[in-house]
Amino acid sequence: MMPNGGGQARAEAMTTLKVLVHELTTSSEVGDLLAAAKAESLDAWQSANLREIGRVYREATCMPADLVAAQKIATSASEQAWRYHRAANDWSAMLPHLKEVVSLARQEATVRAEASGLAPYDALLDTYEPGVTSAEVSVIFDELKGFLPGFVEAVLERQKLSPPLPVAGDFAISNQKLLGQEVMATLGFDFDHGRLDISHHPFCGGVPDDVRITTRYDEQNFMSALMGVIHETGHAMYEQGLPKDWRGQPVGRALSAGTHESQSLLMEMQACRTPEFFSYLAPRAQRIFLGQESNDPAWNGQNLFKLYTEVKRGFIRVDADEVTYPLHVILRFEIEQALIEGSLEVADLPDAWHEKMSTYLKVDTRGNFMDGCLQDVHWPAGLFGYFPTYTLGAMTAAQLFASAREAIVDLPVQISSGDFAPLLAWLRTNVHGKGKFSSYNELMTSATGRPLEVAPFRAHLEARYLS
Amino acid sequence: MMPNGGGQARAEAMTTLKVLVHELTTSSEVGDLLAAAKAESLDAWQSANLREIGRVYREATCMPADLVAAQKIATSASEQAWRYHRAANDWSAMLPHLKEVVSLARQEATVRAEASGLAPYDALLDTYEPGVTSAEVSVIFDELKGFLPGFVEAVLERQKLSPPLPVAGDFAISNQKLLGQEVMATLGFDFDHGRLDISHHPFCGGVPDDVRITTRYDEQNFMSALMGVIHETGHAMYEQGLPKDWRGQPVGRALSAGTHESQSLLMEMQACRTPEFFSYLAPRAQRIFLGQESNDPAWNGQNLFKLYTEVKRGFIRVDADEVTYPLHVILRFEIEQALIEGSLEVADLPDAWHEKMSTYLKVDTRGNFMDGCLQDVHWPAGLFGYFPTYTLGAMTAAQLFASAREAIVDLPVQISSGDFAPLLAWLRTNVHGKGKFSSYNELMTSATGRPLEVAPFRAHLEARYLS
Repeated sequence: MMPNGGGQARAEAMTTLKVLVHELTTSSEVGDLLAAAKAESLDAWQSANLREIGRVYREATCMPADLVAAQKIATSASEQAWRYHRAANDWSAMLPHLKEVVSLARQEATVRAEASGLAPYDALLDTYEPGVTSAEVSVIFDELKGFLPGFVEAVLERQKLSPPLPVAGDFAISNQKLLGQEVMATLGFDFDHGRLDISHHPFCGGVPDDVRITTRYDEQNFMSALMGVIHETGHAMYEQGLPKDWRGQPVGRALSAGTHESQSLLMEMQACRTPEFFSYLAPRAQRIFLGQESNDPAWNGQNLFKLYTEVKRGFIRVDADEVTYPLHVILRFEIEQALIEGSLEVADLPDAWHEKMSTYLKVDTRGNFMDGCLQDVHWPAGLFGYFPTYTLGAMTAAQLFASAREAIVDLPVQISSGDFAPLLAWLRTNVHGKGKFSSYNELMTSATGRPLEVAPFRAHLEARYLS
Repeated sequence: MMPNGGGQARAEAMTTLKVLVHELTTSSEVGDLLAAAKAESLDAWQSANLREIGRVYREATCMPADLVAAQKIATSASEQAWRYHRAANDWSAMLPHLKEVVSLARQEATVRAEASGLAPYDALLDTYEPGVTSAEVSVIFDELKGFLPGFVEAVLERQKLSPPLPVAGDFAISNQKLLGQEVMATLGFDFDHGRLDISHHPFCGGVPDDVRITTRYDEQNFMSALMGVIHETGHAMYEQGLPKDWRGQPVGRALSAGTHESQSLLMEMQACRTPEFFSYLAPRAQRIFLGQESNDPAWNGQNLFKLYTEVKRGFIRVDADEVTYPLHVILRFEIEQALIEGSLEVADLPDAWHEKMSTYLKVDTRGNFMDGCLQDVHWPAGLFGYFPTYTLGAMTAAQLFASAREAIVDLPVQISSGDFAPLLAWLRTNVHGKGKFSSYNELMTSATGRPLEVAPFRAHLEARYLS
């Protein structure tokens, strides 16, 4: 919504707020209060909150001010440079920026490792996925890596046998918005505490009592915006369902980046990119876009399902389907771990990228930096340790949904009739309402009976793509 | 834009920010820095800024915390009560709330009077209209009061002779918005630093580099929204024109409430509610609402001018035209002055209201509290000293516009061709770009050659309504 010319003033306001929040968070008074609170008699939620306040305090105080300042300058310059150099496919111009950012990220990892007792890369991962170690992630990712390349091959072969019929536009934006809002209401989005708007990049923001989600519309493809809306609605309902008694307190926040992604992907990939949901959606989409229900086989729910679950190998992570996506993530996880540990230097990044892309996805990225190692903003922006959370989220979604299906009688039938209330209630109880009360492993064990495993995700992919 | 359920979280966030700002503003460090800065060698703008920082500091520090807290509780309860009791016309239920609010406003006036050396009511007026005293206002308002009631009578008689033709709707909101945005661009609104949106009550907000204005649309009357847009555009262009070198500094802010209102009313009443502007507007409005230019005499610029400058006596200030409006304001100024000075008690407010309404506007408000002394939110919200700024703004607008017309060759011709650039340039130089550098009286003297006088406003009314 903001006009272009407002950017500078907004940036200054945000910086002022960040500095104020940092000063309040790190004041010595907070340290004294934390120490005193440990001696008090607290109930379970209060104890969990104290633990989380301590984490916020530790993460804010452990970083020396000159390192924070150096990172701010380097990442700001690097992120801006990336916008130009990526478009120009200019690796050598990005190289000095990335070297500086990686050098500072290594320092940050060392500092955070000292403060937390974790290994350097794990200390970065811990800021997004508290309590999860790279050793745990490696076990899971190695298992994925063991079967996914062959699985992709098999799916591609199978898809050739019966290609879907295309669905042609134009799809008026006003109609797409109507359908999006209808689906949001169906899923359980609370419009008294949130809105749907438009932006260049879809996001979910705001506070739990006022959650703003956005999408962008393509007049040739209504499913792109709609699946974006469903994805962001999953994020939004997590926020709306956080424990009301702990608003504004650390224990009242979302558990982790991966858990957040699990809630968007549970809605998008587990509940809605399904024959059941498409059979619910098809007559509604027909009425909105065609003016009436239709027997056109392209608009049949079964064809829509087939059309919008196509698997393709590609260069770009954000365009990837759920089968190839984990391979993009595993590649990044392995590379950024090596960069932080020092076993890979930035200058060797394009070679490492190419080697892994050709092995995992049979794609040749030599010389193609813009669609290769320069495609994501994360590293230029100094984000290391974030990538694994995407795939942890996808797997968490599969495992949670499998348990929800066991717990809720006839869940697929409910979805095909547009009744999401039992699913949302299960998520409220097992995930949303818990905030940061439990650790990720505790939450998974209490919700699904076991910590994160590859089996439910694999079973989900096999059922959808090869059965 | 905010969903209803977001109100509580927004209120808490705003309160937190206000408390932080108050703590930063009133810290003893600021006092020390101010004292030290006085010894420094400063240029004229720096000196003016130091003076304004001192004013902010004095106004923030002089109020005892328990009085601020008591006011917050009382006005918040009173404002909420007003929403119900006004609708129910229930004076006796509002009485205790107003008594409490007035009692606290008297205490505030005493405290601010001690800190500023002004008389109690003047100390409140000074927070909205720095440097202007009630004695100065009284001289001007008495002169207005001397001729306006008879003037209204004469205008009403004259209007009867040739009533305007009505213009009938429906006017689609999307078309009204298009016309509004076209007019905003014509006036000189910078869309790179602002937007037009919709809200229940029109306003102008934001920061100078991102000014948000709103309007509301009536499908039966496009001029209501359009004049609202022009009014808020006047406010917005003042903000956009504030001195860029002093963004975020007290001296870089708008001069006063009355000066702000002068900029909205200069656009709405002086430049645009004119035969010249309506002759510019008419063909554009015809094309947008009728699909093509039209010879319909109702859509003629001269008829539109006549239609939208009709004068009517009425109960409600916010619905009043520019001729009767000052009488509504003078009544409130006299009453609130008496309330603060203690020469009028709250219990006697309805009688005082009726007496003045029947004298100034020949309107009977006995027993009709909702359209009488309970019609405005200002007093229930604890705002005393604000009302006079509306009419000071209208008069300031007339005096500034008269000088602009002398300074700019063929200004009326320019307006009839939609060329507002010379007018805006004159306002940038003489008002907007000065921020709080000069006092109000200095600004008026430098822009118009004399302090505020009644003559230009009276001449404006006579030329428009009786010539």
